[in-house]
Amino acid sequence: MRPLYLSYCFSSSRYLATITFSSSSSNLLPRPILPTFRTNHGFNSTPSRSRLSIRNCSSISAKPSSELRRKKGSPDSSESDDTKLRALRQLFSKPAIGIDAYVIPSQDAHQSEFIAECYMRRGFISGFTGSAGTAVVTKDKAALWTDGRYFLQAEKQLNSSWTLMRAGNVGVPTASEWLNDVLAPGAKVAIDPFLFSFDAAEELKDDIAKKNHELVYLYDVNLVDEIWKYSRPDPPNAPIRVHELKYAGVDVASKLSSLRSQLAGAGCSAIVVSMLDEIAWLLNLRGGDVPHSPVMYAYLVVTMDDSKLFVDSSKVTPQVLIHLKNAGVELRPYGSILSEIESLAFKGTELWLDPSSINAAIVNTYKAACEKHLEGLGSEGTGKSKNREVSNGSSGQSWGPSGVYRASPISLAKAVKNASELEGMRNAHLRDAAALAQFWAWLEDVIHEGAKLTEVDVSDKLLEFRKKQDGFIDTSFDTISGSGANGAIIHYTPEPENCSIVDPKKLFLLDSGAQYIDGTTDITRTVHFGEPTAHEKECFTRVLQGHIALDEAVFPGTTVGFVLDAFARSFLWKIGLDYRHGTGHGVGAALNVHEGPQSISFRHGNTTPLQKGMIVSNEPGYYEDHAFGIRIENLLHVKEANTPYRFGGISYLAFEKLTFVPIQNKMVEVSLLSDAEINWLNDYHAQVWEKVSPLVEGSASQWLWDNTRPLVRQ
Amino acid sequence: MRPLYLSYCFSSSRYLATITFSSSSSNLLPRPILPTFRTNHGFNSTPSRSRLSIRNCSSISAKPSSELRRKKGSPDSSESDDTKLRALRQLFSKPAIGIDAYVIPSQDAHQSEFIAECYMRRGFISGFTGSAGTAVVTKDKAALWTDGRYFLQAEKQLNSSWTLMRAGNVGVPTASEWLNDVLAPGAKVAIDPFLFSFDAAEELKDDIAKKNHELVYLYDVNLVDEIWKYSRPDPPNAPIRVHELKYAGVDVASKLSSLRSQLAGAGCSAIVVSMLDEIAWLLNLRGGDVPHSPVMYAYLVVTMDDSKLFVDSSKVTPQVLIHLKNAGVELRPYGSILSEIESLAFKGTELWLDPSSINAAIVNTYKAACEKHLEGLGSEGTGKSKNREVSNGSSGQSWGPSGVYRASPISLAKAVKNASELEGMRNAHLRDAAALAQFWAWLEDVIHEGAKLTEVDVSDKLLEFRKKQDGFIDTSFDTISGSGANGAIIHYTPEPENCSIVDPKKLFLLDSGAQYIDGTTDITRTVHFGEPTAHEKECFTRVLQGHIALDEAVFPGTTVGFVLDAFARSFLWKIGLDYRHGTGHGVGAALNVHEGPQSISFRHGNTTPLQKGMIVSNEPGYYEDHAFGIRIENLLHVKEANTPYRFGGISYLAFEKLTFVPIQNKMVEVSLLSDAEINWLNDYHAQVWEKVSPLVEGSASQWLWDNTRPLVRQ
Repeated sequence: MRPLYLSYCFSSSRYLATITFSSSSSNLLPRPILPTFRTNHGFNSTPSRSRLSIRNCSSISAKPSSELRRKKGSPDSSESDDTKLRALRQLFSKPAIGIDAYVIPSQDAHQSEFIAECYMRRGFISGFTGSAGTAVVTKDKAALWTDGRYFLQAEKQLNSSWTLMRAGNVGVPTASEWLNDVLAPGAKVAIDPFLFSFDAAEELKDDIAKKNHELVYLYDVNLVDEIWKYSRPDPPNAPIRVHELKYAGVDVASKLSSLRSQLAGAGCSAIVVSMLDEIAWLLNLRGGDVPHSPVMYAYLVVTMDDSKLFVDSSKVTPQVLIHLKNAGVELRPYGSILSEIESLAFKGTELWLDPSSINAAIVNTYKAACEKHLEGLGSEGTGKSKNREVSNGSSGQSWGPSGVYRASPISLAKAVKNASELEGMRNAHLRDAAALAQFWAWLEDVIHEGAKLTEVDVSDKLLEFRKKQDGFIDTSFDTISGSGANGAIIHYTPEPENCSIVDPKKLFLLDSGAQYIDGTTDITRTVHFGEPTAHEKECFTRVLQGHIALDEAVFPGTTVGFVLDAFARSFLWKIGLDYRHGTGHGVGAALNVHEGPQSISFRHGNTTPLQKGMIVSNEPGYYEDHAFGIRIENLLHVKEANTPYRFGGISYLAFEKLTFVPIQNKMVEVSLLSDAEINWLNDYHAQVWEKVSPLVEGSASQWLWDNTRPLVRQ
Repeated sequence: MRPLYLSYCFSSSRYLATITFSSSSSNLLPRPILPTFRTNHGFNSTPSRSRLSIRNCSSISAKPSSELRRKKGSPDSSESDDTKLRALRQLFSKPAIGIDAYVIPSQDAHQSEFIAECYMRRGFISGFTGSAGTAVVTKDKAALWTDGRYFLQAEKQLNSSWTLMRAGNVGVPTASEWLNDVLAPGAKVAIDPFLFSFDAAEELKDDIAKKNHELVYLYDVNLVDEIWKYSRPDPPNAPIRVHELKYAGVDVASKLSSLRSQLAGAGCSAIVVSMLDEIAWLLNLRGGDVPHSPVMYAYLVVTMDDSKLFVDSSKVTPQVLIHLKNAGVELRPYGSILSEIESLAFKGTELWLDPSSINAAIVNTYKAACEKHLEGLGSEGTGKSKNREVSNGSSGQSWGPSGVYRASPISLAKAVKNASELEGMRNAHLRDAAALAQFWAWLEDVIHEGAKLTEVDVSDKLLEFRKKQDGFIDTSFDTISGSGANGAIIHYTPEPENCSIVDPKKLFLLDSGAQYIDGTTDITRTVHFGEPTAHEKECFTRVLQGHIALDEAVFPGTTVGFVLDAFARSFLWKIGLDYRHGTGHGVGAALNVHEGPQSISFRHGNTTPLQKGMIVSNEPGYYEDHAFGIRIENLLHVKEANTPYRFGGISYLAFEKLTFVPIQNKMVEVSLLSDAEINWLNDYHAQVWEKVSPLVEGSASQWLWDNTRPLVRQ
């Protein structure tokens, strides 16, 4: 298995692993972890004048895994897949279209990790419902690319009209290589430009240009939506709510003011924000349009003078309306974003655009409008406009706007948590820990009584316990509940119809998290209900030693995440073991369970230094194929270390634990641990008891007591 | 102090820190550690037809520091510096020259770390004798760039005609920025193209092109040599010797055969080798043309059919002649390299050239000759030749040759040691350890008797002990002998006239190494002759813990050096301390004490994985300004680890120690060490006694016994 094709982190479908079009490894990672950032892209396809209709689709929130899975597992099958492909191909030759191929990615228009059902176009057209995949349909062929996590599922779900492309396997072409192979030179390959980041569209365009193919942007119609029609789910319309200041910590006006300073510093007069968590964070709003992430579909444009939120007004409650008005934010229809972009360009507005997240429809509309603006300016600019380089600074004003193409400034601002956000995260983690203590007490009890529970039964019961906690909203991702060999499938998602019974004689891995009103959690524990083998104990203990080494790290304030990754692996390395995923990802405060820009990974592409206030997961693991999986995950807050010296005149950083749930002592081979490591474990368990015991009673309290007793060397 | 301007490693003047012309950090590192590798450079200055004269200059070998230092410290001063500058400027306006500025770098024509005196042109013209610096002379100005190590020395040595440019200080322009500032647009800036790598010359050319200046290559004359004339030292002419097969391990024919396979694989038919250690390694020869490195000035051209060594024939002994003849290597005059390059191009030879090491004279001569060759080919190629991209593969043949620009394949081949080379390294290290045991026994004795010894006295005495060892040839770099605060100057080189007395009440840092017939050594120990403070002990112990952590690391065979660097720092980080240099460099086998391509550094630019057979230093440190310096350095051999598992189907690697000299137990704060760390130290000392005691007797044997006793927890 090629680790490149595994998405950065572990929870099944947590991070949409984009199947890219070239084989360059840097692009195989989902965006917020390794933002690929480029400037000065040329572009040569001009979008049509103005397109105001955004194709639309219902909010899912905190449903049991069993129900969710059933829903996802049965895509609309009122028409056979062949009928769908035929209908799609008929559209190819319509006069206003005239294309040879159509590329259908997994994405929505916002590069979201979790997307609303109405945007699951690739699933509808192909029948394949995995989180990652790209469908490409030509006049006589249909192929679907997905990665190793989904080969078996795709084999089952694709009918004979489709060719499964096992991305990452030797000899399997990329989608663009395949297009260059099967189409006669000079073909027209079309995409919905809303569904590709500008960077991704440019890459596809360049790749297929090698065979003289043209990339055609279909702005006005999504061809899959055209055939999906009435069976297509309605767009989500969950009401938006205000994220209270006591949780957000900073009011919208202050956030906007700080953003505007950054715009001015970069020589810009406005920014377009399309990442849904960035909009939610900036406006202190939360939504319910997609599962697991408390966000709403919207675009936001902030200029030096005003802010406009492009959103379906049916979601806007009176309270939200007042909140927005107070912050000087006006409402606009979601579908009017492109005409706003055009209008901004015509006004000469220099826009900050993040080409790795802003879709190609927006960027290309802006660029085309800037060119027109320039032509309209008369003599001064006309001569040079055509071959002008895209400006990267403020110097473009005299020639008209051209855009500043940089990573979004909101990503870093959002990653560095303020005191209120941290307080919310700490509180949410304690309530989550209480739910987990109740859950584990229950689970151990029923397993020991001989109950036959499936992996899905277990995750449904966990949800029941979490739902009882104050402020619970949703799970933060699909729970990974894996018994025995299923624990070794890093992105395992149990399905109600075919998942395993939890075997009391095998290791059980449980990776889960929740969205609360005040914070987001993500925790993995691995336990044995009976007697683990010596090998299982050794592997668990080495994973734990790596977890402790990272938890206890102190490091200069300039340290990039990947520098710390080896600390978490070194104990496994000693015996020739390792794990094929990164060690840590950023986590939002009552927001997305995965966020950038920081990460802790064996990959060296992300050079973002860790900063005070960031939150990262600490989740080393070990996976033995067809046998068992081990992972131990806490969330950590990056804090200033209280070191006696500060060499180089800089701050040193360390971690504060947010997660307080026992680690099973039974799994620890004490002889492998140093005294310092035993002390770490015992200190941690003492803190768990102290912090969580006031929140539980009865059997959960007893369980918590039993599982926080100090480990002693024999 | 900006760490960027410190050369990668520590020994004073060991690694010539090139003062580059741009401020990009990647170019501030000496070449073999972080090879900067570029392809497809354009070039537009065509060299004159054929230049056969290479300007020439005496070998220095194993002289005491006191003598060497005195020599280096007194540059030729028969003419005043003003006279020199005047003479140089008179040459500017000669008809065949006609330039506005001349740039005089530190380098020889081979990017050597240590260079022969006759090539120390920058020292001659400016009076500044430090290892790193660039002089730039215009018609009315003269400026010298050097880094923080040399500010004081340069202030003393430069007369009032010169402006000192403190490279790295805020507001100090780079040389090219300065040229762009002081010269009227469109000026002619000249260089000796032999003294710049192709990459460095291209960078300078591009930088000054911003002000429309032209970079002029003076092939036929070095202007400094013209005014140096008769006072200029003769070129070195130490006899070359055969590096016996019992030490080299692989015969020349096999090495050449392997090289030719690589050439064929890259679509090349020949390679030009200019790095002196690469030539020495490939031909199993050693020389004595420069201090510290057993190499001879030469170029080597290997084609598929023959090999030609361009070398002063006076250095070639009858034995070497037979050796070369047996290997099919022909001799050519050193100065005829360019005509050979032209001839190869005219024959249509596709040359492998490493643009980061091959000088601009060679690359530009080749490129110009290729263009001519193409024009001579007639109709087929003519039309397209001008705008053709430089080919990176074999496809260029039909259009004539264009060169393949890649990192030298010999660098990696040389870095991966064979069994004989490793055996030689092990043996040389044991003899070196015996010399060090004798030295330390002597030093402690005389210091305790109250002797007043200078830092230079101490390094001279060390040389005396080493000279008695079988196969000793030279020191491998200038010994760093630093008492107290001098130990905190990472690149300290004591000067006889002004160095310190070794203070028995302060820490003493000694970093030294030797060239033996069978191997190269490099070792640092830090000791206290009296009672160290608690703070000194804590710092020493944390450096030692880092040294142990790296020494004991086990890691996947795909691991890049920088991944291991943090292991060596983590114990210092815990209390907010760090050090501003890398942790490890490659070491040649009876060759250069610094070699690439591998390194272990906090810098992330070098992505060469460590490989079985490589040798690296392990030398964490800590330096407290104006107080003390600590460094503990052993050399390590990268070996296959004997792990019970091999996750991912790959080898895991570990280290074998080559250095066996006691680490002073007195400096260790035992309470900070884990049991495992105490065991490491005691095991190491047991090995030191076992391996080295048979080689010493008397007081040295007693000292070795005393200093290898196990440390016990109180």
